[in-house]
Amino acid sequence: MASLPPVYSFPPLYTRQPNSLTRRQQISTWIDIISQYCKGKKIWYMSADGTVIDDDRSENGKIDNEDSKEVGKNLFNNEEIQRSVPQVFIDEIWSQMVKEGKCLPIDQSGRKSNNSTTTRYFILWKNLDNWASLILQWFEDSGKLNQVITLYELSESDETLSWEFHGMPENLLYYSLKPLCDRNRATMLKDENGKVIAIKVV
Amino acid sequence: MASLPPVYSFPPLYTRQPNSLTRRQQISTWIDIISQYCKGKKIWYMSADGTVIDDDRSENGKIDNEDSKEVGKNLFNNEEIQRSVPQVFIDEIWSQMVKEGKCLPIDQSGRKSNNSTTTRYFILWKNLDNWASLILQWFEDSGKLNQVITLYELSESDETLSWEFHGMPENLLYYSLKPLCDRNRATMLKDENGKVIAIKVV
Repeated sequence: MASLPPVYSFPPLYTRQPNSLTRRQQISTWIDIISQYCKGKKIWYMSADGTVIDDDRSENGKIDNEDSKEVGKNLFNNEEIQRSVPQVFIDEIWSQMVKEGKCLPIDQSGRKSNNSTTTRYFILWKNLDNWASLILQWFEDSGKLNQVITLYELSESDETLSWEFHGMPENLLYYSLKPLCDRNRATMLKDENGKVIAIKVV
Repeated sequence: MASLPPVYSFPPLYTRQPNSLTRRQQISTWIDIISQYCKGKKIWYMSADGTVIDDDRSENGKIDNEDSKEVGKNLFNNEEIQRSVPQVFIDEIWSQMVKEGKCLPIDQSGRKSNNSTTTRYFILWKNLDNWASLILQWFEDSGKLNQVITLYELSESDETLSWEFHGMPENLLYYSLKPLCDRNRATMLKDENGKVIAIKVV
C-alpha cells in the first residue's frame, strides 16, 4: 500500500484556504496524510517544519531502514508538483493535531513541551491511551506481569518484534506507559539520575 | 476504519479544476475515494451518477446489509458540506477509472458496455486479474480443482464466506473468471440459454 494518497499531489491542498470551514477540512486532510504516512513507514518524529527525522537510536550505531523511512524528506514540500505548505499554515496544522491528541510537541531535551520550546513532534498514529492498552496487552499475553521490564527491552527485544510499538523511542514509550500508571496498573522505575528506565505492570 | 477520508469534505475537490495537471490529481483522488469506499462497504455497483445500487441479489428476497451499504447514497453529492460534482466532471472521472481498469462499464442487460449504453459501473477495487488469482487460490486451497462449481456457489456458498469475492454478483464473477479461461486454467459451462452458470478450474 502506498503511504501517500493521490490527494497528496492535489495542489489546492497546499494553499491555505481562506474560508474557515474549508480550511478545517483541509487541515483534517493533512492530519490524515501525516498519520497514515508515519504509520506506514513507522516514523515516530517529525521536525516542526515537517522533516522526517530519525529517532535517537541512530546514536547507538543502529542505522536500520533509514532509506525506507525517507529520513530528511520534508512532507510539506512536494517536489513532484513543486508545491509547499507555508510555515504559518504548517503551524496551524500542528496546533490542531496536538489538540486532537494525534501528535505530541517535544522540546530539545525530549520532553513534552509547550508551544514556545517545541522542536519536533511525536506522531501519534495511535493515541496515547491506545498505545497504553496495546502495551498492556503485550504484558498480559507474554506473561510479563509483576516483572521489571526495561524500556529498552520493550522497544528493542525480539519478544516485541511483531508488536506495533517495537522500535518506539524510549521517551515516547514513557508517555505511552503513563496512562497505565495513572490507572494504577503500573509503576515506573528510575535510575540514579531520575530517568525512567523500566516499568512493572501489575 | 472510516470509509470516507477527510479529503472527501474538502470543497475544492468538487470544483472541476481548470488546470489539467491539477485536474489529473483531482481525478486520482476521486478514484481513490470511490475504490476505498466501495471496498470498505463491499459495494459492487454504482450508477453513472454515483448512486450506490444494490446488486441483483435483492431480487431473490435477500436484503442483507442494505443499511451499511447505504444503498441510494450518491457519493458525488456531499450533503454535509452541500457540494456536488457536476455530471460532466463525474463522466470524466468514470472515463479515467475505466481506462485504469478500476471499474467496468455495464449496460442494462448486465454486460460490459461501450460508453453510449452504460447505465452503471462495477467498481473494481481489485482489478480483474487480481480477482482471478484470488478465486484460483480458493479453488486450490479448498481442493475444488477439476470439479464443476456454479457461479452461485462461488458467490453465496458458506465455503467462500471468508473470501473477499463472497457475495460478488454473478456477472462480475464472469468477468473475474475470464482471465482464467484466457490462461487455459478454466472452462465455463453454459445453461440451455447460453448463459454461463458454472466453471471448472483445472
